[in-house]
Amino acid sequence: MLELIDLNRQLSKEIYKDLFPKLELRMGELQRAAKEAGVPLIVVFEGWDASGKGTVINRLTQSLDPRGFTVHAIKPADETEQRYPWLWRFWNRLPAAGHIAIFARSWYMRVLDEAVEQTASPDEVREAYEDILQFERQLTDSGVVIVKFWLHISRKEQRQRHKQLLNDPATAWTVGKAERQQNRKYDQWLASVETMLERTLTAKAPWTVVEATQDRFARTKVFETIIDALEEELDYRRQHPPVPPQPMPKPEPSPTQEHSILDRADLSLSLPRDEYEQQLKGLQTRLRQLEHELYQARIPAAIVYCGWDAAGKGGNIRRLTSSLDPRGYQVIPIAAPTEEEKAHHYLWRFWRRLPKSGHIAIFDRSWYGRVMVERVEGFCTEDQWKRAYREINEFECELAEFGTVLVKFWMHIDSDEQLRRFRAREETMEKHWKITDEDWRNRGKWEHYKVAVTDMLRRTSTTYAPWTILEANDKLHARIKALETVAAAIEAGLAKGRRAP
Amino acid sequence: MLELIDLNRQLSKEIYKDLFPKLELRMGELQRAAKEAGVPLIVVFEGWDASGKGTVINRLTQSLDPRGFTVHAIKPADETEQRYPWLWRFWNRLPAAGHIAIFARSWYMRVLDEAVEQTASPDEVREAYEDILQFERQLTDSGVVIVKFWLHISRKEQRQRHKQLLNDPATAWTVGKAERQQNRKYDQWLASVETMLERTLTAKAPWTVVEATQDRFARTKVFETIIDALEEELDYRRQHPPVPPQPMPKPEPSPTQEHSILDRADLSLSLPRDEYEQQLKGLQTRLRQLEHELYQARIPAAIVYCGWDAAGKGGNIRRLTSSLDPRGYQVIPIAAPTEEEKAHHYLWRFWRRLPKSGHIAIFDRSWYGRVMVERVEGFCTEDQWKRAYREINEFECELAEFGTVLVKFWMHIDSDEQLRRFRAREETMEKHWKITDEDWRNRGKWEHYKVAVTDMLRRTSTTYAPWTILEANDKLHARIKALETVAAAIEAGLAKGRRAP
Repeated sequence: MLELIDLNRQLSKEIYKDLFPKLELRMGELQRAAKEAGVPLIVVFEGWDASGKGTVINRLTQSLDPRGFTVHAIKPADETEQRYPWLWRFWNRLPAAGHIAIFARSWYMRVLDEAVEQTASPDEVREAYEDILQFERQLTDSGVVIVKFWLHISRKEQRQRHKQLLNDPATAWTVGKAERQQNRKYDQWLASVETMLERTLTAKAPWTVVEATQDRFARTKVFETIIDALEEELDYRRQHPPVPPQPMPKPEPSPTQEHSILDRADLSLSLPRDEYEQQLKGLQTRLRQLEHELYQARIPAAIVYCGWDAAGKGGNIRRLTSSLDPRGYQVIPIAAPTEEEKAHHYLWRFWRRLPKSGHIAIFDRSWYGRVMVERVEGFCTEDQWKRAYREINEFECELAEFGTVLVKFWMHIDSDEQLRRFRAREETMEKHWKITDEDWRNRGKWEHYKVAVTDMLRRTSTTYAPWTILEANDKLHARIKALETVAAAIEAGLAKGRRAP
Repeated sequence: MLELIDLNRQLSKEIYKDLFPKLELRMGELQRAAKEAGVPLIVVFEGWDASGKGTVINRLTQSLDPRGFTVHAIKPADETEQRYPWLWRFWNRLPAAGHIAIFARSWYMRVLDEAVEQTASPDEVREAYEDILQFERQLTDSGVVIVKFWLHISRKEQRQRHKQLLNDPATAWTVGKAERQQNRKYDQWLASVETMLERTLTAKAPWTVVEATQDRFARTKVFETIIDALEEELDYRRQHPPVPPQPMPKPEPSPTQEHSILDRADLSLSLPRDEYEQQLKGLQTRLRQLEHELYQARIPAAIVYCGWDAAGKGGNIRRLTSSLDPRGYQVIPIAAPTEEEKAHHYLWRFWRRLPKSGHIAIFDRSWYGRVMVERVEGFCTEDQWKRAYREINEFECELAEFGTVLVKFWMHIDSDEQLRRFRAREETMEKHWKITDEDWRNRGKWEHYKVAVTDMLRRTSTTYAPWTILEANDKLHARIKALETVAAAIEAGLAKGRRAP
């Protein structure tokens, strides 16, 4: 695509002086309108070294309300960042609704610098493209506006700029080996840039190539493009007011849609207490050892607990953690999202809480809330929960590709057992706090949840992240099975010998 | 996902007798409603051999109006089909708006049979997944409903069914080597099926796994699933009436959005007639030879002509073809789509007209109509033309991957030259038919078209399918440049030595 770019484009001072102040005003107005409408905006600046990214970003930020944007200067991943899946650091930097995130360099480093310098293998680059397309699709589907710029200058122009920078002691330090290297390998870079533009030019997150020989011109085009994108999104939202989410209607009984996955669980499974005590001891010792080996091997693990109210998640998790070294694991209770969390993609809060390599994160409830409680209660739209299955699979696939040990438990009890436990909680003073009106309300929707849980289990049980159903009418059985499952999964992860970088 | 499937599921005769007739009635009603609403439906049946695909399809068709559906039994690609990109045969079989296409086996053969039997390489399988996701996305984006079934039986069940079939001379022939092979390699197949389900489970084209041990059960679930999908789409369309397309507003002049790609074309380029005659002769001889070599090498070529009215497409094409062997090429004039074409995805009519391997197709106008005239005149919605850039790039990428030589010309003249030619046409009796009121109307929108053409050139000039701008104020120059470009492209294609299978 770049062969069509005219790098000689200029803007006269007169035209610029007339036009640019208007653009700046409009930019300010649109920032306020976007804030009002809750539109998050991501602006990505990629481009040749010395193409003027810094200058144009600087100009952009001057026209914005500083409380509404953040500039993220992206460098190669540091040691901490390398201990997470590669997109983690970008998920962490996503703008909330109404905010602007400006990226000076971005996730595209992976398919540019790392591809050219071959610090990423061709397979990693190929996967990176898939990851990027998924990442941007998840964001734009959720209403994020993404504007991507490639600042383009010729090889000759770059060489001249480098020379100029080197001549001035104040700027000479900005032109290092890597920068000169890029000029030498200009053609190789060019090929990677072309591939990048071709592969990631989507309707919702398109690239704009900016002729950057003249700052004035570049800056004007950048402003115009951002203004257009925001106006378009605001227009769209005015014309398409959101469809209010609906709670799930009462499921109609159907003989083929009966929910046999859950009904098949053998809830009579149980374990005598003496056997339990004995096995527990052995398993806990083994797990402590495995925690240590995970740490050594720098492999992260995520253990997810979902299940019916009163199925025994808390007690189960306590047995899992009681012998672990607390420096190596963390229990992450998931409640209703905060206001800040609601202002982001729903997976954002889980990305932020991923275990770093060598560590274990135990999620007490999880990202599956979207396709369970949020679906049933109508806390999200039908589009949102339907999209979520694929988004979750993609998310877990990224964890798995990074080498994460992933265990997902559905703790299953039957409706009678739940009733017994609810009553026991009401009757026992010290357990009283554990039972609320909400629990009773949820219980009233048992059949709704059963449909949602069945859909969830079916659609998100994958080869890289299968579900394990814990038959939990007998708590002792459920605990031993959980610990055994975790131990086996960690051993398999260690055996795969996949070491996080 | 398959580990969660309960293959023992049954439906009692009583329940079935009560339920099934209602489903059949509903199916008929929905077929009529979908026809009315112009909803195209694709139903894909994949599944184990002997899982009962034929039986359930048979039952399904009995409840449908036979004028409204077609069953496509998919076998390995035959010789003709192998001469086109692999998805060609499926594009050819797409249902029109309001129609139903039932696929007994489908494009998933590529990632199942061919993957397991290794008749497709791992790279081909990987590409096939991308192609499939693109294909289904393009269809569902355009409003096609896709329902996909995997009919699941156990290895043991399959073996028993094979035995039964073999025992009866009337059916013994249906169990050949391939069928027994599948049972032997059941686990290998299972792994491929899992991968397929995981990778192609999208929100808009989801898989339904059908427990197919009992026909009665399988059939009921298939009916219920199709009914749900149709009801959902019809509901959606009722709630979201289509936004009427708008003609392009008059472009606002902007100094950075001036359309320099076209303005940069050097329209003073020309060629004296004697030089022209001499070069023409040589080029035509060379092209005839190249046509023959293409044929031998079984490489297809697609030459696309786009350009301003009166830019000289016809004359240029005549010079290209005049010395070619008419058995090896075809000129395909593209006019406004017919009613049948409008009832399909807009790329459908181009897929159907692709050159087969060894042949040359010359398109006089092309698939770029969507982002030019349809955008400018408002013959399609904004969503549609915005999506089209990516769809076109994906389409051309599939052609290129198949080894197709692809040349795209934009014939460029300036507005004054067009006016001269229009007037000449009006004044010359024998050219009078060439100029219509519509030409004058289009001319009135020169600035609109300029914006559309510039966007088109920028967004669809790729490494695998770059644009060539023909400076056509001088027809002789444009003709020689066109012939040279085609010759060079064919030579490059031959050199790549990529042979179509």
